[in-house]
Amino acid sequence: MNTFGRLLHLTTFGESHGLALGGVVDGCPAGILLDEADLQAELDARRPGTHAASSERNESDRVQLLSGIFEGKTTGTPIGFLIANEDARSADYEHLRGVFRPGHGDFSWQAKFGIRDYRGGGRASGRETVCRVVGGAIAKRILQTAGSEVFACTREIAGLTASGDDFYRAASRPFFAPEDGIVPFWEKELAYVASLGDSVGGIVEIVACGVPAGLGEPVFDKLEARLAAALMSVGAVKGVEVGDGFAAARMRGSWHNDQIGTEGFLSNHAGGILGGISSGQDIVLRVAVKPISSISLPQQTVTLGGDPTEISVQGRHDICAIPRIVPVLKAMVCLTLADMFLFWQHSGKIECEKGN
Amino acid sequence: MNTFGRLLHLTTFGESHGLALGGVVDGCPAGILLDEADLQAELDARRPGTHAASSERNESDRVQLLSGIFEGKTTGTPIGFLIANEDARSADYEHLRGVFRPGHGDFSWQAKFGIRDYRGGGRASGRETVCRVVGGAIAKRILQTAGSEVFACTREIAGLTASGDDFYRAASRPFFAPEDGIVPFWEKELAYVASLGDSVGGIVEIVACGVPAGLGEPVFDKLEARLAAALMSVGAVKGVEVGDGFAAARMRGSWHNDQIGTEGFLSNHAGGILGGISSGQDIVLRVAVKPISSISLPQQTVTLGGDPTEISVQGRHDICAIPRIVPVLKAMVCLTLADMFLFWQHSGKIECEKGN
Amino acid sequence: MNTFGRLLHLTTFGESHGLALGGVVDGCPAGILLDEADLQAELDARRPGTHAASSERNESDRVQLLSGIFEGKTTGTPIGFLIANEDARSADYEHLRGVFRPGHGDFSWQAKFGIRDYRGGGRASGRETVCRVVGGAIAKRILQTAGSEVFACTREIAGLTASGDDFYRAASRPFFAPEDGIVPFWEKELAYVASLGDSVGGIVEIVACGVPAGLGEPVFDKLEARLAAALMSVGAVKGVEVGDGFAAARMRGSWHNDQIGTEGFLSNHAGGILGGISSGQDIVLRVAVKPISSISLPQQTVTLGGDPTEISVQGRHDICAIPRIVPVLKAMVCLTLADMFLFWQHSGKIECEKGN
Amino acid sequence: MNTFGRLLHLTTFGESHGLALGGVVDGCPAGILLDEADLQAELDARRPGTHAASSERNESDRVQLLSGIFEGKTTGTPIGFLIANEDARSADYEHLRGVFRPGHGDFSWQAKFGIRDYRGGGRASGRETVCRVVGGAIAKRILQTAGSEVFACTREIAGLTASGDDFYRAASRPFFAPEDGIVPFWEKELAYVASLGDSVGGIVEIVACGVPAGLGEPVFDKLEARLAAALMSVGAVKGVEVGDGFAAARMRGSWHNDQIGTEGFLSNHAGGILGGISSGQDIVLRVAVKPISSISLPQQTVTLGGDPTEISVQGRHDICAIPRIVPVLKAMVCLTLADMFLFWQHSGKIECEKGN
Repeated sequence: MNTFGRLLHLTTFGESHGLALGGVVDGCPAGILLDEADLQAELDARRPGTHAASSERNESDRVQLLSGIFEGKTTGTPIGFLIANEDARSADYEHLRGVFRPGHGDFSWQAKFGIRDYRGGGRASGRETVCRVVGGAIAKRILQTAGSEVFACTREIAGLTASGDDFYRAASRPFFAPEDGIVPFWEKELAYVASLGDSVGGIVEIVACGVPAGLGEPVFDKLEARLAAALMSVGAVKGVEVGDGFAAARMRGSWHNDQIGTEGFLSNHAGGILGGISSGQDIVLRVAVKPISSISLPQQTVTLGGDPTEISVQGRHDICAIPRIVPVLKAMVCLTLADMFLFWQHSGKIECEKGN
Repeated sequence: MNTFGRLLHLTTFGESHGLALGGVVDGCPAGILLDEADLQAELDARRPGTHAASSERNESDRVQLLSGIFEGKTTGTPIGFLIANEDARSADYEHLRGVFRPGHGDFSWQAKFGIRDYRGGGRASGRETVCRVVGGAIAKRILQTAGSEVFACTREIAGLTASGDDFYRAASRPFFAPEDGIVPFWEKELAYVASLGDSVGGIVEIVACGVPAGLGEPVFDKLEARLAAALMSVGAVKGVEVGDGFAAARMRGSWHNDQIGTEGFLSNHAGGILGGISSGQDIVLRVAVKPISSISLPQQTVTLGGDPTEISVQGRHDICAIPRIVPVLKAMVCLTLADMFLFWQHSGKIECEKGN
Repeated sequence: MNTFGRLLHLTTFGESHGLALGGVVDGCPAGILLDEADLQAELDARRPGTHAASSERNESDRVQLLSGIFEGKTTGTPIGFLIANEDARSADYEHLRGVFRPGHGDFSWQAKFGIRDYRGGGRASGRETVCRVVGGAIAKRILQTAGSEVFACTREIAGLTASGDDFYRAASRPFFAPEDGIVPFWEKELAYVASLGDSVGGIVEIVACGVPAGLGEPVFDKLEARLAAALMSVGAVKGVEVGDGFAAARMRGSWHNDQIGTEGFLSNHAGGILGGISSGQDIVLRVAVKPISSISLPQQTVTLGGDPTEISVQGRHDICAIPRIVPVLKAMVCLTLADMFLFWQHSGKIECEKGN
Repeated sequence: MNTFGRLLHLTTFGESHGLALGGVVDGCPAGILLDEADLQAELDARRPGTHAASSERNESDRVQLLSGIFEGKTTGTPIGFLIANEDARSADYEHLRGVFRPGHGDFSWQAKFGIRDYRGGGRASGRETVCRVVGGAIAKRILQTAGSEVFACTREIAGLTASGDDFYRAASRPFFAPEDGIVPFWEKELAYVASLGDSVGGIVEIVACGVPAGLGEPVFDKLEARLAAALMSVGAVKGVEVGDGFAAARMRGSWHNDQIGTEGFLSNHAGGILGGISSGQDIVLRVAVKPISSISLPQQTVTLGGDPTEISVQGRHDICAIPRIVPVLKAMVCLTLADMFLFWQHSGKIECEKGN
């Protein structure tokens, strides 16, 4: 439930306004160079306060490694880590104690557990994703040993689409944009929406390069199935597609099929996965992100007791889950691919050794 | 890998041209009325030869129950079942032995396993889904004990969209259409595409009614994550969305948020899931299905040895995975919801009994 | 619940008096030579009617492979198998319908499920172990690719201990005895106990040779933990020990510790496992088997309704679970070691490739 | 690998000489009263320095709860906890860097991972068990909601057997003795062995009372199988038995079978488990604990490079794993039973609600 992966496990804990968030990465192979700076770089990319779309909660998000590393290398034992909560102003949320915020999980969590930490969304807060980013950073190091790299960029915000494909420098642009030209459009739109007290959504694209052919475990653990689960497990995600995705539903087979030449595939409509198994081509994924639920515009709701009321969410909130969600989605893809990579290794090796 | 679910397990086996397909459903509670006729009805809905889009392979798909039932009721022990292959014309595929078919998993499976049963796609064939349908039929019976029902219909074929919402009678219409009017359009389009030797895709919609609030296990096993994995594990699926899905990426928060009145939610943009947990509203999912990969139009490819060649897939193939994929997708939703339902039960019960 | 293993899965189904028993082995690497004869040989060793201790139920126990094999080799897809029930005389058990047999699971299964197939013990019958033997035979083939071999022999029956150590020919001796001399003693004792209408237990010893150092996943999946679970999951087993086992509780550290010379360990008190991980020495396990519960001597019990009654179990029953349990215990060790072997492979390989 | 349980998960991390040990308990139902004091009480029972058998490493072992609790109750979200290492004198171990200590996992861990934290045994140290005790304390609270209680006592040290059965006050006696009389004998024996520079083992007995009938998931997750795995996963454990255990191998069926009267079972040779499922009687387990491997007597071994050497382990070491292992074994039984209890709940509930 709070553990992700089959061979590479990430287990996380922590609430938005508790003492700390943290987790355990188990199953990381021994002998990989790893230090806190590797993880911190990924975490910093997710930090609030650096983008126009972001709220003002100011967390340094310093990750502390507690185990599993010895003399700079992983030892094969579980890697425990901790991120302290510093700037949690719980009092900001006291007035939300007995009210269900529209768009949030307040109602369904209450129905499930009968109790919840309402401060900042508790466990349902986007803040839990810091632990995913740490896990993803460790997974990234495993993938690098296989020559794989994962890139993530923003394809669309508020209906404004970026057409560029410069994934490699996306991480250094505002909004993780795949081109320079779209940035001012997004900035202006977000400023406008902020002035309305409203919020917007968008689309994120993730591309994994250098993934070896053979990852994925049909029939139920097809690679796209595992990736879809990973991405859909991030709050605010409402859709996932691979390759041409929903557009493929309107294509003819003769157009969608990737024909094969002597140098390899002639196109990549499939998005790098065939029959549930990676084909060696780039893996291409797109994710629909809904508008942020917390808005200052007044909304109709009810109290815990069922009485009607109106709510206007103040406090520190993002206007758009993008760009902060981008490193999180990238982390989930890294975790999934690293996990499947470890699976793939075991099945490959026996074959060459068995000497039947 | 070939087992689905955490508490309700479906394990399947079998290839397109082997002796039989079959599986085991484990974790089904004891005392549920169940017989072969329940399962056969679901299987019959998936049978080829009953729709314009379907191939002519004629399988009776008779399911045989081997265990787990005693005097008409489940006993809590694993339910083994078998479906014999009858009409497998393996010779049809001999010419495909050393060739990678575009759009199929031939290349990636070969890369992974170094060996594959090429006859009719072997394990990668859509034929493995008969076992999912049997599992789904058992799951459906579990859900009925909770008052839940799952409906599936075709929303779109070849870009032609149905606008109706009569889910309840979809199962009795051609193509599982949600209205009568669209049927002749789809029939004509499929006949036309068949005459071209090409194929098409479409979109399937699934609605689960009467699902209790509280299903889903955040943060990694959010209900939409498990559903997305379930649906994406079906061959030909390239995208999954919940509620407004990709459209939500272009909405404002004040429009997308489902406000709450004293009688309940005032809209269902979220698709019945909030914060990863069911809210008690209808769960709404849409799935993008790619065009069938096997087409008779000639396509460029290579042989196992890497030599260029051309392929024109003859034999018995569907023009569209819809409608046959519809009962399969419904089955996967049933399996997922029943699994999460069993999870939900355990967490709910302790609370009321603990008497702290 | 009815699935064993983490990477190499065995899922089984079937009751003593149903149509068939069967199962699925998932996760077996591709490319291993395998046919029905390999499996049948192991099954034949478990057959009743060949030993003095055995009942007279005459089952041919023919295993049928349904999938996962192509042109004589495993394909990496799940291996389905079936064993039909032939000689099930259900009428023999009609009088046991409403009575709890002492020593059997009748009472606890009824308490758990509220329903049970009482015929021959249903799923709780020792007959379910045929599927374990098939799974073990496949696991054995995997282990052979690693140069490992598992031997099992009977150490003790009815308190009469064998002192020999000729494991290699145990399979060809009556009772899987590790020496010739003990056999007539066991035969006479069993004949005597049979004449009393009573039953006896014994101790089985299993030795795994050629297991590479490095198997086991601390801290919770220590190799001995997984082996103990595997062995304790077989009906009639009441104790498991590794190496010196319970005797180690009465040793001094200076005696029990296996000192190390330049040629390797100087003794094997530990039984081939140190810190939860195989050391490369022989893995040595011993299992306590309780006396068969079904005896013809009268015993006090109650009916389903709670009324007192007396029971004398007639029908076809063994006097001792040994020797038939021996191939089953061996199979469970094979399954466990093969599973851990696949784990070990994945962790090993990355290290040598990562090239940090 | 470092996660225990199926529905109630305990994931742990941490090495003997790292910054901290800790873990995550996931799957604990919401609404249970829980605070740090509950956990601390169990941890204190495991602390060194309070018994004659114990070393002098002085750790306060203060547990800190980081998440999952709100206003004094569990919320159904993961419970993160931390125990800082305070008194780790790593320099004590520098001379052990390149040497394999007999009886320890040094050799096998090196073979598996190619790297290890040699300081105090690293992850292989008994110190990891503090996290098991915390997890067990949470499990104990869950069991209390079901009216179950687990007791643990020392049955034997160095061959000296206690015959008493006062489990209820064992926790307040030295060595968790089940009677007063044996204590001075054990004290004297341990003092003597300490003077020799040697170590001893013993036998621990665990009894679980008030466990409802119906726990256990045959055929592979029989209750005794899960308990055996749990206990065998604790370092120094070499054998596990349930009920009469190994003694049952020398009994007749007519003696071992627990006959049933109108008031219930007339004996408990089975140890509370029949057919893999709890019967409602007391669950009785015994565990063989080997002598402590670290002894000051000189032992023959080799260096990492394979050169012969002699080792005499100084530093702070226990003479006997008992009594400190007793709360750990009790914790593992609590974790297993609570996990199986949650399983049992889900299967039970559907039956009464389904209204077929």
